[in-house]
Amino acid sequence: MRVSVLVGGVGGARFLQGVRALLGDAGAITAIVNVGDDVWMHGMRICPDLDTCMYTLGGGIDTERGWGRIGETWHAKEELAAYKAVPDWFGLGDRDLATHLIRSQMLRAGYPLSAVTEALCDRWQPGVALLPATDERNETHVVVTDPDDGDNRRAIHFQEWWVRYRAKVETHGFVNVGAEQAKPGPGVIDAIENSDVVFVAPSNPVVSVGAILSVPGIRGALRTTSAKVVGLSPVIGGKPLRGMADECLDVIGVETSAEAIGRHYGARSATGILDGWLVHSTDTADVPGVEVRSVPLLMTDPPTTAEMVRAAMDLAGIAL
Amino acid sequence: MRVSVLVGGVGGARFLQGVRALLGDAGAITAIVNVGDDVWMHGMRICPDLDTCMYTLGGGIDTERGWGRIGETWHAKEELAAYKAVPDWFGLGDRDLATHLIRSQMLRAGYPLSAVTEALCDRWQPGVALLPATDERNETHVVVTDPDDGDNRRAIHFQEWWVRYRAKVETHGFVNVGAEQAKPGPGVIDAIENSDVVFVAPSNPVVSVGAILSVPGIRGALRTTSAKVVGLSPVIGGKPLRGMADECLDVIGVETSAEAIGRHYGARSATGILDGWLVHSTDTADVPGVEVRSVPLLMTDPPTTAEMVRAAMDLAGIAL
Repeated sequence: MRVSVLVGGVGGARFLQGVRALLGDAGAITAIVNVGDDVWMHGMRICPDLDTCMYTLGGGIDTERGWGRIGETWHAKEELAAYKAVPDWFGLGDRDLATHLIRSQMLRAGYPLSAVTEALCDRWQPGVALLPATDERNETHVVVTDPDDGDNRRAIHFQEWWVRYRAKVETHGFVNVGAEQAKPGPGVIDAIENSDVVFVAPSNPVVSVGAILSVPGIRGALRTTSAKVVGLSPVIGGKPLRGMADECLDVIGVETSAEAIGRHYGARSATGILDGWLVHSTDTADVPGVEVRSVPLLMTDPPTTAEMVRAAMDLAGIAL
Repeated sequence: MRVSVLVGGVGGARFLQGVRALLGDAGAITAIVNVGDDVWMHGMRICPDLDTCMYTLGGGIDTERGWGRIGETWHAKEELAAYKAVPDWFGLGDRDLATHLIRSQMLRAGYPLSAVTEALCDRWQPGVALLPATDERNETHVVVTDPDDGDNRRAIHFQEWWVRYRAKVETHGFVNVGAEQAKPGPGVIDAIENSDVVFVAPSNPVVSVGAILSVPGIRGALRTTSAKVVGLSPVIGGKPLRGMADECLDVIGVETSAEAIGRHYGARSATGILDGWLVHSTDTADVPGVEVRSVPLLMTDPPTTAEMVRAAMDLAGIAL
């Protein structure tokens, strides 16, 4: 059973845990991971979503916080701040730094991000192939009213918008910097084309899934694959499961509801990417051309998540 | 009063504390710091002697250990080892990492090491101008019998020889890689030419002072400056004060004694660099053309060190 999943960070990582728990050794799972959050900081390349997936699946995540390493300390970050080095608002942990250092050194030596990720995963053994959506730079930047000059707009990196300003700044749009030139990472198109089912994880529809879809070729592969494509709503009762999907949806003029997000993705029979759309038990959604079902969309722990994945499989016509 | 000092790491840093304690605000102190120990590791440029001087004078040093930061943790290093990243034998602290990250980012942005050092010192306020002996690469490598293949020789970085092998490997010589092309760092020649006195700190005569002297132009400036040049023995009773100067001296065929090191530096009136040579109270030394005095060469604390510096000043004809 080959399963591919489009994922972002925390929500995507927990969804992958559920897929792995459900399929065990019987499945070949490929995650197509958002790289729109990736950023250079202090001379290091940081890939938040890839790392969250890797640490979560590899048992290294801080489960309380949802991101970063368990047993983390913050001494390098303290010292960078003492030097007045910017940015000073990013959560750069001492243990986490080792990952960034190895990645940055390999990237500088000429290895593509996909090869670097594979090398890092040699330690973590996530049980899922983690493929960057692209090896090229494809960063999500955000056009905002300049916080220091209300008369002007400027573009800031998504991390600055999200972590520094908590989206509390007048926002006009998102830009996928580098998207035009980006190519799908090695294995991405093959995974979509040759899977039994493709899932769109309950990740942020704009800056996670949307950023993946901004890579030319990925949307097309989703539209033409013989596999069923089933999405899961990241919104329950009009509220995002976690993160600030509502703030992002506002910016692109999409309502924060399971129905609106389903319609935003759209049906493959029209111009969209979905065959099926799974919403929470208490939600309903009418998405033309897409089969919608309501089940508990809870990711409390991997066994609970596995039941959700089973329902998504069922919606794709695969009984497990 | 302008004072210049040729220094290595721990011993040099403590000597500078003594100079600063003796002169207070009345002195302009310039340290010409060895960069032969500098090394790229995990994509970061590490400058052990510059950092030891900066941390010692800036109050950030771990005084027990003599190097690295007080309150240090080693989590990034643990994680690098878990990834099996090499080298794994170098003491890379989490706090210390911030310094390396800032330095590496600035170097990659095109700033010379001297400018980077000045920027880092903006935080530490060492009260001494810390000048890299050169902005160019001038690394001490060591020709050894290959530890993995006794039939062959190879060159390893000094750090590997010193930290990994503790000099316990058959050694044939030192090479200053890059020395031919190196130029003295900004301010170095000016400091030597326009000082009232130049000291050669009780640092390793081979891999600290020797590496500084390998930069073309520095030896010449020491020989022609109108200032007196006074050295202090790093060896007491045939034993190095700290470190493994004896191992290094063995390699170049110089006896580990105050007299032999004085003769190795030699008299300015001949082809050497010294006017005066200070040895410990219990030592004697006959160095042709050089005035030798015996005083307590102890660097227990800055006031004690200051008394030693006073004796060195006196030997240079400067009464304080």
